[in-house]
Amino acid sequence: MTKIARFRHLGSDRLGVVKDDHYIDLTRAYVASRSAAGDVRASALVEAVLPADALAYFQGGRESYLALQEAVAYAQGLDPNVAIAAGILVPRSGTKTLVPIPNPPKIVCVARNYGKHAAEAGLEVSEIPILFPRFAVTQIADGDSIIVPTVSDQVDWEGELAVVIGKGGRHISKADAFEHVAGYTVFNDVSVRDYQFRVNQYTGGKNFHASGPVGPHIVLADEGIDPHALRITTSINGVVKQDANTDEFIFDIPTIIEHISEFIELEPGDIIPTGTPAGVGFKRNPPEFLKHGDIIDVTVEGIGTLSNPVRNEIR
Amino acid sequence: MTKIARFRHLGSDRLGVVKDDHYIDLTRAYVASRSAAGDVRASALVEAVLPADALAYFQGGRESYLALQEAVAYAQGLDPNVAIAAGILVPRSGTKTLVPIPNPPKIVCVARNYGKHAAEAGLEVSEIPILFPRFAVTQIADGDSIIVPTVSDQVDWEGELAVVIGKGGRHISKADAFEHVAGYTVFNDVSVRDYQFRVNQYTGGKNFHASGPVGPHIVLADEGIDPHALRITTSINGVVKQDANTDEFIFDIPTIIEHISEFIELEPGDIIPTGTPAGVGFKRNPPEFLKHGDIIDVTVEGIGTLSNPVRNEIR
Repeated sequence: MTKIARFRHLGSDRLGVVKDDHYIDLTRAYVASRSAAGDVRASALVEAVLPADALAYFQGGRESYLALQEAVAYAQGLDPNVAIAAGILVPRSGTKTLVPIPNPPKIVCVARNYGKHAAEAGLEVSEIPILFPRFAVTQIADGDSIIVPTVSDQVDWEGELAVVIGKGGRHISKADAFEHVAGYTVFNDVSVRDYQFRVNQYTGGKNFHASGPVGPHIVLADEGIDPHALRITTSINGVVKQDANTDEFIFDIPTIIEHISEFIELEPGDIIPTGTPAGVGFKRNPPEFLKHGDIIDVTVEGIGTLSNPVRNEIR
Repeated sequence: MTKIARFRHLGSDRLGVVKDDHYIDLTRAYVASRSAAGDVRASALVEAVLPADALAYFQGGRESYLALQEAVAYAQGLDPNVAIAAGILVPRSGTKTLVPIPNPPKIVCVARNYGKHAAEAGLEVSEIPILFPRFAVTQIADGDSIIVPTVSDQVDWEGELAVVIGKGGRHISKADAFEHVAGYTVFNDVSVRDYQFRVNQYTGGKNFHASGPVGPHIVLADEGIDPHALRITTSINGVVKQDANTDEFIFDIPTIIEHISEFIELEPGDIIPTGTPAGVGFKRNPPEFLKHGDIIDVTVEGIGTLSNPVRNEIR
């Protein structure tokens, strides 16, 4: 299971692979591996195929994937103390987790994709996937605070499995769809309900500042993950609020990819949060919303746990 | 009137200012100006403040603006033949116009912002601006073809004035809003109507491949333009279809900026198409749509004319 993550260490934003309680720093490991092999182009090569830039990684396709494999193998063959001294192995305890892809070309969210959630919202199943945008600047990392804005107290949770696109394309058939999936991550599509429904488009309510937790890492899709058989749970202060399985999807991932690529070009690094199951706050009786001091965890089986505190906006 | 444009010349994507039938190549002009002044840092400086990258220009704020002024003044002081030989002045006839900002952090479109258009669509005026996204990859330049897809023949026009954000921010008051406007351009928010209304979110119908003509240039906002008193017309094959004035806005630009920045951070280079007036195709009797071979022109008074042919998708 290869988990790609971005992290900040000594003031520098790095790209790594999670290895127990360390990160393998991919850029440094690849330069070291190539240099050890006598390749004098190592520095130029790493800029081209494995810079500390997750979007470039996904744009790099197979070449970047092979470089990652080489970097990981090289790092694992080193004496750990030597690797730590060289900054190739970085203890995770001294780092801050960053958003996996800060600059995805687009984030296309799917609404109403679990039958029970559609039912709790009193809504019919749609003919085609309902899509809405999240703008990249609203993303926050694992551990960052979700902000309850001064203008609303209706801040609701939506735990989701998100797909990360590798190879881009248009008119992608269902049969070919998984060739375009590079990985999976966890998303919390935090929604400000009054703004979401004040007008007929969700844009505002789905794009509040610091309302898009994502991560903590991206699990590469090359390892036999079945994304349609994953338990997904959302807990607030340890109390389970959503507990479902992605086998409940109304539109499976190939159908979503086929539909989106029918109208727009999918690009490497695009993120597609696939919708949330039943158990959101605003349809509870009485309604429940996130409040200052809460801790919210979203776990997708085999992918990871995304944990964020909640705090009030200070103006 | 300073018009910033991107263009391709001899295989290179450049940033320029329109000067009659030439572009001033800003990057080359700035390097030449600094070098002539004996500044040995000229090449490093241009990378920092005036690279051939429109997003970097808007991110650069006042420093980039001053560099642009210096570059333009220097170019205008040169003998034209010398400037052309040095690639500082480029005849526009030998270039291809590019999308002004290929990678805006976000494109936030306003729906239903002219009273008569709301009326023709049979819709009430909303309490707050209705917003929907356009993803950057759907942008096309002046002269590029709008594509009628194989999956729909309901391709409609929406001529619009678009705002380009300079200084970013949140909680921007109406009183301060114009400090955040860097310029204006023309947008054609081409909409595929059946996809727009198949589900309750507009995302698909507003994001078809090659459906977002924008440009041909950005007029800087520093020259006393009143964006609320501009005639806007859309013509198809020379026949006027939309003819209105931005004084009809339901939500003026300060109100739109205040509203958007209430929930999300505005960023330099963001584009806000401000909505279309009455006269779109799908509400005509009988309905009219764009078809292969049409030429569509959108003109915003004092800003520019955006002209695009229409052709069928080939698969």
